[in-house]
Amino acid sequence: MSTTSTIAPTQDEAQIRQLIADQLQAICAKDVDAIMRPYSSDAVMYDVKPPYQTVGAAAWRAMWDACLPCFPESCEMETRDEHLTVGGELAFAHWLFRFKLADPHHPAGQTWMRLTACYRKRGNRWEIAHEHVSVPFDPCTSQAAFTLDP
Amino acid sequence: MSTTSTIAPTQDEAQIRQLIADQLQAICAKDVDAIMRPYSSDAVMYDVKPPYQTVGAAAWRAMWDACLPCFPESCEMETRDEHLTVGGELAFAHWLFRFKLADPHHPAGQTWMRLTACYRKRGNRWEIAHEHVSVPFDPCTSQAAFTLDP
Repeated sequence: MSTTSTIAPTQDEAQIRQLIADQLQAICAKDVDAIMRPYSSDAVMYDVKPPYQTVGAAAWRAMWDACLPCFPESCEMETRDEHLTVGGELAFAHWLFRFKLADPHHPAGQTWMRLTACYRKRGNRWEIAHEHVSVPFDPCTSQAAFTLDP
Repeated sequence: MSTTSTIAPTQDEAQIRQLIADQLQAICAKDVDAIMRPYSSDAVMYDVKPPYQTVGAAAWRAMWDACLPCFPESCEMETRDEHLTVGGELAFAHWLFRFKLADPHHPAGQTWMRLTACYRKRGNRWEIAHEHVSVPFDPCTSQAAFTLDP
């Protein structure tokens, strides 16, 4: 993961990288408690699917509770083009990701997605204040512009 | 605009708010130089339409050069649910926006969009390191989930 450093961020960078790795693992393990652990209670989320925004960790947890049963039994997450920028009390990261699934035709595995995450340090703990996940859309057809090679 | 403050950010907040206001005005004025002024040369952009990512200010400028002739002659930008979080050297913001156009049927005016912007301070100047703009999509139809009331 490429990193732009500002204020003595070595330990902070390591904590955020661990947060990201733990969360990817938690999604594949369908472990909602672990998925939700880093979110600020007032996080604002822009998800890949409607609604336009989800406000607060409780509403975001309800989305995961509804969504995880549709996920395949086992999966891996593949990421690329990761960037992490860390300051004294704030950080942000963005990357592309996709699900790597045993069934190549599963709907959840048919596209790459883009993710931006914004972090805030509270005491010694980094938390997610905001995430934005999306697929671009083709303005000529209004269809999501899926791709397996972005 | 709601603001979460961390390190003595009053002047920084004002600078970023001005950057955002200037850029919204520049888009409606089709002024590419003014649109591009705040971008870092190495900015990474996730746009609402393909490609998945655009790397570097030069490529992002080429996107605007190609895109602006399709914009209507006059427009206003409406924003809502703005959040700005400012630290010592980093900041991030997100909001919903749409184009308010004289022609209610113009394609550019048919939906709200979500925008996340990540800023970095270089010397006394705030610059945009990353932006992510999107519309959610309906996984049942793969259509962009446009709405006039998010």
